[in-house]
This record gives sequence, structure tokens and C-alpha cells, in this order.
Amino acid sequence: MRTQVAIIGAGPSGLLLGQLLHNAGIDNVILERQSGDYVLGRIRAGVLEQGMVDLLRQAGVSQRMDAEGLVHDGFELALEGRQVHIDLKGLTGGKSVMVYGQTEVTRDLMAAREAAGAQTLYNASNVQPHGMKTDAPYVTFEKDGETWRLDCDYIAGCDGFHGVARQSIPADVLSIFERVYPFGWLGVLADTPPVNDELVYAKHERGFALCSQRSATRSRYYLQVPAEEKVEDWSDQRFWDELKTRLPAPLADRLVTGPSIEKSIAPLRSFVVEPMQFGRLFLVGDAAHIVPPTGAKGLNLAASDVSTLFNILLKVYAEGRTDLLERYSEVCLRRIWKAERFSWWMTSMLHRFADSDDFSQRITDSELAYFVDSEAGRTTIAENYVGLPYEAIE
Amino acid sequence: MRTQVAIIGAGPSGLLLGQLLHNAGIDNVILERQSGDYVLGRIRAGVLEQGMVDLLRQAGVSQRMDAEGLVHDGFELALEGRQVHIDLKGLTGGKSVMVYGQTEVTRDLMAAREAAGAQTLYNASNVQPHGMKTDAPYVTFEKDGETWRLDCDYIAGCDGFHGVARQSIPADVLSIFERVYPFGWLGVLADTPPVNDELVYAKHERGFALCSQRSATRSRYYLQVPAEEKVEDWSDQRFWDELKTRLPAPLADRLVTGPSIEKSIAPLRSFVVEPMQFGRLFLVGDAAHIVPPTGAKGLNLAASDVSTLFNILLKVYAEGRTDLLERYSEVCLRRIWKAERFSWWMTSMLHRFADSDDFSQRITDSELAYFVDSEAGRTTIAENYVGLPYEAIE
Repeated sequence: MRTQVAIIGAGPSGLLLGQLLHNAGIDNVILERQSGDYVLGRIRAGVLEQGMVDLLRQAGVSQRMDAEGLVHDGFELALEGRQVHIDLKGLTGGKSVMVYGQTEVTRDLMAAREAAGAQTLYNASNVQPHGMKTDAPYVTFEKDGETWRLDCDYIAGCDGFHGVARQSIPADVLSIFERVYPFGWLGVLADTPPVNDELVYAKHERGFALCSQRSATRSRYYLQVPAEEKVEDWSDQRFWDELKTRLPAPLADRLVTGPSIEKSIAPLRSFVVEPMQFGRLFLVGDAAHIVPPTGAKGLNLAASDVSTLFNILLKVYAEGRTDLLERYSEVCLRRIWKAERFSWWMTSMLHRFADSDDFSQRITDSELAYFVDSEAGRTTIAENYVGLPYEAIE
Repeated sequence: MRTQVAIIGAGPSGLLLGQLLHNAGIDNVILERQSGDYVLGRIRAGVLEQGMVDLLRQAGVSQRMDAEGLVHDGFELALEGRQVHIDLKGLTGGKSVMVYGQTEVTRDLMAAREAAGAQTLYNASNVQPHGMKTDAPYVTFEKDGETWRLDCDYIAGCDGFHGVARQSIPADVLSIFERVYPFGWLGVLADTPPVNDELVYAKHERGFALCSQRSATRSRYYLQVPAEEKVEDWSDQRFWDELKTRLPAPLADRLVTGPSIEKSIAPLRSFVVEPMQFGRLFLVGDAAHIVPPTGAKGLNLAASDVSTLFNILLKVYAEGRTDLLERYSEVCLRRIWKAERFSWWMTSMLHRFADSDDFSQRITDSELAYFVDSEAGRTTIAENYVGLPYEAIE
């Protein structure tokens, strides 16, 4: 088998890259370890930056998102006794975010790929990239009991934090930057109307809480819990009681509860690997970097990597500009680190850190008070939340 | 002896409070442990916020400052290879800072006090406040071999970090918030023309450097040095060589060196005590809080405390509004903590921390890159640097 770009991983970044390449006439094959249904079963982020929305439109897969997605022009910060509205649209000169679940993005991308007749090989096991430092890289994998070889020009590693792509790069050429937080997020998905039109980020002495949503009838709520907490210890009742405790009274009073349809605990981690490329292998999204979910940057960062890699490959195939390939990592990392910074900052501002000293706690409180009291401060929050501009490739 | 307000300490905050009270017809006596010449010999800050400039004008002591002080509409950040101009005036809608040495402010205030015939008792030793929780507080002290008692309505503790005022408050009613930094500032004063029209804050892998000034012919330079460094180990030549190494080439090339007329090392510390009052004793400035010098907030914070206390005392004596007295600490602390936050942030951004982990270093670099690249980010720097608004007393 031969293709131009071998893509490892059929999550949203692999599928989006594949769709953009396909539309541009660049042949690609996606290899996915799991089944399509398994991929769709993952419950993840739901807030899309303007840049990602534009990219989905560019890829021609925005029809359902544009019809069903909820445009949010702002969000609420509930800070122990006061509520502050972050007017995204007003503070950024008209930008907003789109609330539309990652599962739905993935579903739309899968449908578009199938309609286009582009190849995705699900249930491909033992995927392994080879010859990344040569002019003739290839990927081997097993499927239906046979071993296959996919020859290609370039390999895109879109296979997530635990995937094989990053692990195929010799450890001694990579630098790892990491912060593990001493807490996780306990998330509940429920078919109840969201408690608020906009997302609510709540800081409380018992810990952070987030009121999010997937649609007008599906809510997604989160609670900060200790890292070692077990999901079995959280009945629906306990979850709703704790959530009400952490919300301002007017919100707690109108919270509609119901049976959870998904409940899980996700650890919080900041992680970046440098560089994000090794010869003809390019790491995209979670394969290269993880953010804590505060600020909803994970999926959006993957989309900006996709945009960068797509634009470089476009110039490679259309203009023979292979000199741009070596700049992929540097261009991506500039934007990634700013998003890592924002995600770390939002996490630091809004969560309770049990080991924080008195001075640090006052500094955190003062920092948050300054940023929400100042229009310039609120603008820094808003412009990061809607997403900093994509880096240009020239 | 009897007065309305007993002021402990004849530094700039005690003198400024005394002048404002005197002008308003409120009798006051200043007690100072040292001689006037000793007080004038202290080399300290030199950047005055707009609010402090206005307060000095209100006190009628601005004539020489307005004639000789240098209005700075911006400052430079030199960040390892790039220079960024912070346009204070443009970013804050017309605000700026005044470069005028603390020594000169003190000299002007002393002259005004002498001209007004208000009483300052220098060389007053063993100053001790008493009866702070009663309606009849008083201060005892020794002078010329005799013990004296000064009865008063209120006591203002303007006697600095090491002064007696804070130490007179029972330790169990005070909360201390503190951060000691693992480095100090080695400062040199020289009668050389400043290397740059505006101040230059330089971040360098060998450590922070600051190019400041007192006038068009007197420069003040600083270098970050380890906390345990000894001033004797720094010849003038070594100082100038190290400064040149840390500055961008165009600045290093035009640096004019000369013999130092003062050279000293100051530790860097963040410190706040809460509350800032105990009965009829009110702590003002360094007696209650210390900031690291990055951002030049120390003297300016003292001035905003003076403004708050003066405005409250004015309403006490003019309108009998004694209910406002208990709000002094709370009103001051709101603004103080924001300035503590900014001073901590500027210090954290620009200094080299030997014990910082790789992730934290990248976050710091990204944070600084974001804040200087974004207009909203630069605005947060500018509006804090020129000084946040004084809190209203109503």
C-alpha cells in the first residue's frame, strides 16, 4: 500500500487533517487502533474556538455544527460571593466560541470522510512508524490477522497522549515539560437543561466547579476532586448536592438534576514535548501536548496544529516548499505554550490548592480580583478564551 | 505635650501625612528616632505614580518636583534579544510617572514642614505608643536625656518595616503574609548621564538588570545578585562589566560609566500584615507592607495609605465620621494586595530563579511573551505601573 500522508489516529485531529488533505487532492490513509464506535464513545471537550470553527468550515464539515451548535458570546465567573460576566464578543471585537461536542465533530468528520471515499482502517493493531529519518518512511500494522505495510511521504501522529507516534521517537532527542496537578475533574453528563445559558466557572472554598453543556437539553458538569478519588464513591445524589454547594445560590436554586448518562474522573496535567517532529514524523495535538481542561484548549490546540501541518503540506505538494517542514514544531510551539500558559493560569486561579501557602493564596485572590476588575485584565481572559490567532506560515 | 495626631517616623509618609493634616488645620507632631540628615541620607526609590504626584501637589510641596522631575511616558523591557516599549501614556489614556528621587521628596517635605512651623522631634529615642485601644492614646519617648509623653487622639505608625509601631501590636491579632526571594539588588548611584531616556528593565540569563535614573546627570543601576552576595566583592569595574553583559548591545555600547557615589545590596521581600490598625494606631507604608522594588511600588503604596488615612481623619475632624476609622485597613489592603501582586509578578517574570523547574521556566517565558505581544497584556502592565486608582472613602 502507498499513500502520500499516513495518519495515525482517527480522532478529531486525524480526521480533520485527512479531510483537509483530501479536499486539496493530497492522498492520505488513516490508521486507527480502535473501532469507529469506540472513538465516538469518548466524551471530551465541547467548546470550539473561532479558529477551529473556521477550519471546520474550510474543511466542508460545518453544516450540522452551524445548524445545531450554540454560539456563546460570553461566560460567567462565580467567585465566592460575586459573579463576573466575561463578555467575549465585546472584549475581543466580535469573537465568540461555539459549544458543540467533540463527539459530534468526530461524527461529522467520519461521515464526510466516508462520503468522500477516503480510507480509514479501523481496528489496525501494532501500528508502528519506520524510516522517519529517511526519504521513504512507512508504517506497519496488523489487521484481520495479517501484517501490512503502508509506504508514504510523511507520517502524522494524531494518536493522542498514550499513542505510539511520540513513543517512536528516540527519547534522547525529546525534552519533556510537565506539571501534574493534585486533583482531577469528576464529570457528569445528563439529559437535563443547562443551569445557565452560558458556561459558569465557579471558584469555591470546597473546590472548583464548572457548569458546561453540549446542547439545550444536555448538560455537562464538573467538580474538582482529589486526584485519588474514586468514581464509585460518587452517587448522582452526592454529585448534585456537592455541585449545589459550590454554586452561587441563584444558580443552585434553578439547577435541574437527573440521572447521569456518563460519569468519570479525569486527571489534570500540563505536558509538552519538544520538538514535535522527528524527520518525516509530525506530532499533532495530544500526542505532543496536554492541557488541563480549564479554558477548554485541548481540542482547539489540536486544530491549530492540524492547520499548521496542513498549510505546510499544501506548500510542499503545490510549490515544492520542503524548507517549511522543519519549521513545523517551532511554529506550533509558540501558540501552544501561550495556550499552556492560559490553561495553567485558569487552573491556578480557580482551583483550591491544599498545599498553597498564605502569601500565595492572597496573591491568587488579588490576581483574580485585579483581572476581573480591570477591562484590560478581562480582555486578556477573553482573547485567550476565544483563541489567540493562528501563526502564519510563509 | 498634646496633639491631635501623633506621627511616628519622619520619612516621606510621615512627613506627607503631617503636611496634609497641617494644611487642613489638624495639629500633629512627628517623632523621629534618627536625625534629619540621616533620614535624607537614605537612597531609595525614584519613580512616582500619578496618584502620588497629585497628592504632593495637593500638599503644596510639588514646586521643585514639577520643575526638576522628569515625566516618563513609557519604559523599555529588554528581553534577551528583543526590546519592547511599554507606552504608558498611550496604553492608559494619558497617564505617566514622574522620576524624582525619594530623597528629594523628603527634602521638599522637610522644608515645607519647617516653613509651616509644624513640629518634628528628631533624635527621639525609645518611642513607644500606649493606650491604643482606649480613647486616650499617647506616645512616650526620650529626648535630650528626658522622658516625654505626647497625648493624642490618634497615632500614625509611619516608621517603616523595622519600626516600633507594628511591634507594639499584640502578635496574636496580626496575620503575616511573606515571601523572601533568593536574591537581592546590588545598586549603584553614579553622576553619569543615564544610558537611556526611559527606564530599562532587562531580563537576561545571568539575571535581571535595571537602568534607572534620578536626573539627567545622575544614574541609578541595579543588578540581581544572590542573596548572600557581599558588596565588598563588587568593584565599580566588576559592576559595570556585569551590567554591560546583561544589557542589549546598543545600550551596552553607549553606557557611560564612572565612579559610584553609593553602592549597596538590598534584599527582596514581599510582606503584608493584616489588619493595618489596632485601636487608635494606624500603620502606614513600610510599617505594614514591603514589596520587592521591581515595579517601583514601595513609596507609592505608602502615599496611597497616607491618602486614605488623611481622608478618613479629615472626615473624623470635620464631620465627626468616626465610623470610617475601622475601615482604614480594609480600604488600604484592597489596593495594597493588587500592588503586591504586580510587584511579585514583575519580579517573577524578569528575574532568574535558580530553582525553577523546566515547566515553570517555559510558562514564565510564555507568559511574558503573551503579555508583551498583546495590547491588552501591555495595558495590564502599564495601568499597574502608573498606579491603580486610589480607593474612595465614603
